[in-house]
Amino acid sequence: MRPVFFLSDFGLQDPYVGVVKAVLAQKAPGIGVVDLAHDLPPQDLRRAAYALFEAVPYLPEGSVLLAVVDPGVGTARRAVAALGRRAYVGPDNGLFTLAWLLDPPRRAYALDRVKPPRPQGLDPLPGWRPGAFTFHGRDRFAPAAAHLALGLPPEALGEEVPVESLLRLPLALTPGPEGEILTFDRFGNAITTLLQAPLGGWVEVAGRRVPIRRTFGEVGVGEGVAYLGSAGLLEIALNRGSAREAWGLEEGMPVRLTGP
Amino acid sequence: MRPVFFLSDFGLQDPYVGVVKAVLAQKAPGIGVVDLAHDLPPQDLRRAAYALFEAVPYLPEGSVLLAVVDPGVGTARRAVAALGRRAYVGPDNGLFTLAWLLDPPRRAYALDRVKPPRPQGLDPLPGWRPGAFTFHGRDRFAPAAAHLALGLPPEALGEEVPVESLLRLPLALTPGPEGEILTFDRFGNAITTLLQAPLGGWVEVAGRRVPIRRTFGEVGVGEGVAYLGSAGLLEIALNRGSAREAWGLEEGMPVRLTGP
Amino acid sequence: MRPVFFLSDFGLQDPYVGVVKAVLAQKAPGIGVVDLAHDLPPQDLRRAAYALFEAVPYLPEGSVLLAVVDPGVGTARRAVAALGRRAYVGPDNGLFTLAWLLDPPRRAYALDRVKPPRPQGLDPLPGWRPGAFTFHGRDRFAPAAAHLALGLPPEALGEEVPVESLLRLPLALTPGPEGEILTFDRFGNAITTLLQAPLGGWVEVAGRRVPIRRTFGEVGVGEGVAYLGSAGLLEIALNRGSAREAWGLEEGMPVRLTGP
Repeated sequence: MRPVFFLSDFGLQDPYVGVVKAVLAQKAPGIGVVDLAHDLPPQDLRRAAYALFEAVPYLPEGSVLLAVVDPGVGTARRAVAALGRRAYVGPDNGLFTLAWLLDPPRRAYALDRVKPPRPQGLDPLPGWRPGAFTFHGRDRFAPAAAHLALGLPPEALGEEVPVESLLRLPLALTPGPEGEILTFDRFGNAITTLLQAPLGGWVEVAGRRVPIRRTFGEVGVGEGVAYLGSAGLLEIALNRGSAREAWGLEEGMPVRLTGP
Repeated sequence: MRPVFFLSDFGLQDPYVGVVKAVLAQKAPGIGVVDLAHDLPPQDLRRAAYALFEAVPYLPEGSVLLAVVDPGVGTARRAVAALGRRAYVGPDNGLFTLAWLLDPPRRAYALDRVKPPRPQGLDPLPGWRPGAFTFHGRDRFAPAAAHLALGLPPEALGEEVPVESLLRLPLALTPGPEGEILTFDRFGNAITTLLQAPLGGWVEVAGRRVPIRRTFGEVGVGEGVAYLGSAGLLEIALNRGSAREAWGLEEGMPVRLTGP
Repeated sequence: MRPVFFLSDFGLQDPYVGVVKAVLAQKAPGIGVVDLAHDLPPQDLRRAAYALFEAVPYLPEGSVLLAVVDPGVGTARRAVAALGRRAYVGPDNGLFTLAWLLDPPRRAYALDRVKPPRPQGLDPLPGWRPGAFTFHGRDRFAPAAAHLALGLPPEALGEEVPVESLLRLPLALTPGPEGEILTFDRFGNAITTLLQAPLGGWVEVAGRRVPIRRTFGEVGVGEGVAYLGSAGLLEIALNRGSAREAWGLEEGMPVRLTGP
């Protein structure tokens, strides 16, 4: 059986993560589930796209990525499974955009034939109608992920759809020199779309010039620094502070590499 | 071996969740543990009761629910194991009230013969007296949950007690038309005790009339909406806002269904 | 295979915990990983040291503790594996100081021969250079922990170093009467370095005298109380409040036991 790597913005204040895992276990007893992240900022697709880009190089080929960050739940957005060297299950809203730069899908399926799990082993509760209400993580994505983890044919999940029809966020990763702020981490460091960080150079952002160094430790407390982060993207930080807050940085702001 | 589903308000800032799992693994090597939620608001029994109601329909018969939200720790409240189609282990404080509407207990045991785990493989530390101090999650509930997961007889855990003596919160789930606010989710949506949400109707709360729709997406940003949530309970929300804060909602406030 | 117990300050807003687990699974398929805590206050070594002290008595002999709280990442601090009755993998910055009071290391190795995991199963992305950037949890500590979990020889990880050279925080646990505030839990309770809490006695802190009781429940709401906590250390609390905030307590403040 293939392992499932599970990412969401459900948090751990509610039982949703646990319910999804219960459904995975019900549909595929003995399944291995690894949590990637569950406290992602709610409905933040860029942050989720970045998290998946960071993780995907270390997830084994053949594994299943179940990702649910879904601002469009309740609208007409599709639910999909896409197959590259790994399987991707989630809403068709672009959250896999960056991961697919490294592992592009070759086939995709709309999840329109997925059967929700049945509540079971219960006494009747007058007026309670299980199945009258939907929670896509539980009712659609988890059963589809379990199906693929079992190695069953994706055709059973729904109609094949062209991979070109899958929604992508308007984001490019580039060696530069021009890029933008992709997202922020929880410390307020800016993660950019730039794939390099030439030592001795500078990055311009929001009217500032920030020196590029190997690590944080090479500048003093309260100074700005840019470096190649753990995902291979240039990051901009304020040593022991939040660059985001201190400098008023925002998603989408242009960044630019300049020489020494 | 039966799986254990584990819910608490311990958070992940402290090692308590990990210690409980270490004890489960020590008492029942190879045990499968699924986390339901650990960032529940501290000591919030209604929220915990709701979370368990949401989860229980998807947990396999025979599984063990270990739930520790325990405002009364250190008082005379009992520790119990209750057996329905699943096994329930936790403080006798009503946190299983709603789950038991779906899976009522048939037998119950006070956990007064449970042996705490022994610290082991340690050098002596002068003055340190392991066992002089108690942490019920670790010392009582985890060993009891492991015992039941192994399929061992519940009589060994302690005296049988009448199921009627188990404490229940004064909460009823009802088709309506009268109900109350049960609790809130982390976005400030109100979860009510009403089991239905008739499309086209309205719900009255705190002097407002909120329209009942299928989903969030059917009202504009900043507008109120009610809908059947993923647990099958009517929820009241403010699209892209917190109904709790904006409207001053509180637990226990009456809600009422009205016609179109 | 030995289980790995994993503690960090990575949080669950980023995918780092999941990436580390993916690497563990890649290097040691089928490995059992138990999360101890991941929302520890960032870079708080005292809090991490306390969490490891609390957990270690319940972790089986032979298990592997992977702990990454690393304010010195990017500086010259060493990465180490230390072997006592359990194996300890992490930065050489003192975070195991208290755990080692109970399970002192007999041998230690600098992790200078550890091979980072290879990104794999990827299309080329022009300009992206996997391996140009480091994340010690993923690239050094996780492979070392997997190696030890497999029972492979520690000599392959790097040079042996004297256990006396391992860094320790300047902290002692003592029966008293003099001690200090070690750290705080998330509720603002102060955890001290004192190993006893004589009933009927008092503890002096910040100009106050706080009575020692068996539990919280023995004083009124808003009153101070001290008791032996779940790790066997004296704790100082304000019933239903934060002693830290209300009384301005700080790490390192002296505490003193006095008679009845």
